Amino acid sequence: MSMMWTVKVVSLGVVGLSLSVELLSWLLRRLRTGRTLNEVLFFPSEMACVEHIFTPSSPHSCLCPLPHGVETSFSRFLRRILSATSSLDLCVFAFSNMDLSRAVLALHSRGVTIRVLTDKDYAAITGSQIGVLRKAGICARCDVGSVYMHHKFALVDGRLLITGSLNWTLTAVQSNVENVIVTDEPDLVQPFIKEFHRLWVHNDPARYLHSSDQKPAHSTTRTLH
Amino acid sequence: MSMMWTVKVVSLGVVGLSLSVELLSWLLRRLRTGRTLNEVLFFPSEMACVEHIFTPSSPHSCLCPLPHGVETSFSRFLRRILSATSSLDLCVFAFSNMDLSRAVLALHSRGVTIRVLTDKDYAAITGSQIGVLRKAGICARCDVGSVYMHHKFALVDGRLLITGSLNWTLTAVQSNVENVIVTDEPDLVQPFIKEFHRLWVHNDPARYLHSSDQKPAHSTTRTLH
Repeated sequence: MSMMWTVKVVSLGVVGLSLSVELLSWLLRRLRTGRTLNEVLFFPSEMACVEHIFTPSSPHSCLCPLPHGVETSFSRFLRRILSATSSLDLCVFAFSNMDLSRAVLALHSRGVTIRVLTDKDYAAITGSQIGVLRKAGICARCDVGSVYMHHKFALVDGRLLITGSLNWTLTAVQSNVENVIVTDEPDLVQPFIKEFHRLWVHNDPARYLHSSDQKPAHSTTRTLH
Repeated sequence: MSMMWTVKVVSLGVVGLSLSVELLSWLLRRLRTGRTLNEVLFFPSEMACVEHIFTPSSPHSCLCPLPHGVETSFSRFLRRILSATSSLDLCVFAFSNMDLSRAVLALHSRGVTIRVLTDKDYAAITGSQIGVLRKAGICARCDVGSVYMHHKFALVDGRLLITGSLNWTLTAVQSNVENVIVTDEPDLVQPFIKEFHRLWVHNDPARYLHSSDQKPAHSTTRTLH
């Protein structure tokens, strides 16, 4: 009889163990699924003050007339950029947005490694922030091999991809119909990491003799891009 | 003793069942993971003949001087567009690429429901394919509410999202540095379906009196978008 009890206890143990394994595996799956981030932001963004994102210690300090405490596509976008703790690789056609420039400068002053790759023509136009970033000591390279370096993506800590139709301009954020995808899906992130590396190496100024990165190489008017 | 055997058999049965459930659940997970498509295409694309994609029944019929039988970013992109069997919702800033126009016309002639939403200014420029599509009976609407309708995405059968920096122009495909993401991840696809619906309804010509969709509403030169 005690033998039968032993068998019964062992059986119950096995069932219990199986159920535990199943539960643990379900929890792990949940955690893994929950970890994959896929967010879509659409623009134009509502107008709202973003001062509190830059100065979270004094969130009510800003007296500007814009609405305060409103979460918008742009504030989400800004937070994602500012979430960088080790690196920000930025590959963007046009960069003139002052808030985004401020964000990149803030990351730089926190010690985040910044690399900026941009279009050679747009780097030199009025309002471009590339010169501002360079003056602050941020390494920026211009694409010299193509008609347009038309990417608009950022890689945060080599882990998070932020990409879409949105150039880093005020018009794009406030007036255009645009989209931005934020994802940490490795199948999407990894190809962009490789692409950034390829373009970064390819556009190393040491590789070409005449420094044409501040001057438009094409003077023709190109409207379709 | 026979009682003990029964218990042993039941125990083994329970263990077997647990293992089967675990195996089945693992297989289902594998299937589910395998089903998620995440592809990234980079441009400029290599130049290659795409005639065989349009006429798969006679793949060797083309005598053009371009390389044949080469898989490129553009051929993959084209195949994804041509994979539509029920619907193609297209939301693109600039559409002048003749191969892509041919693809959309081919889908239309196969009975695929096509909806095209585009930027009001670029719909009217020389080389735009919007007029060609309209003449073929395809429904095309122009965005009237924003400075630029800057999206460049397509929804294939309401299931596959194709989006990125790439406008549907020859320059974008052959000369620019561009990216395109192809995904069926619902977290990414669903927001774009909603966005298309929102813009489609918002830009219904019946909603505004003066048909300005063929004429530029903004005559100022806008270089940063």
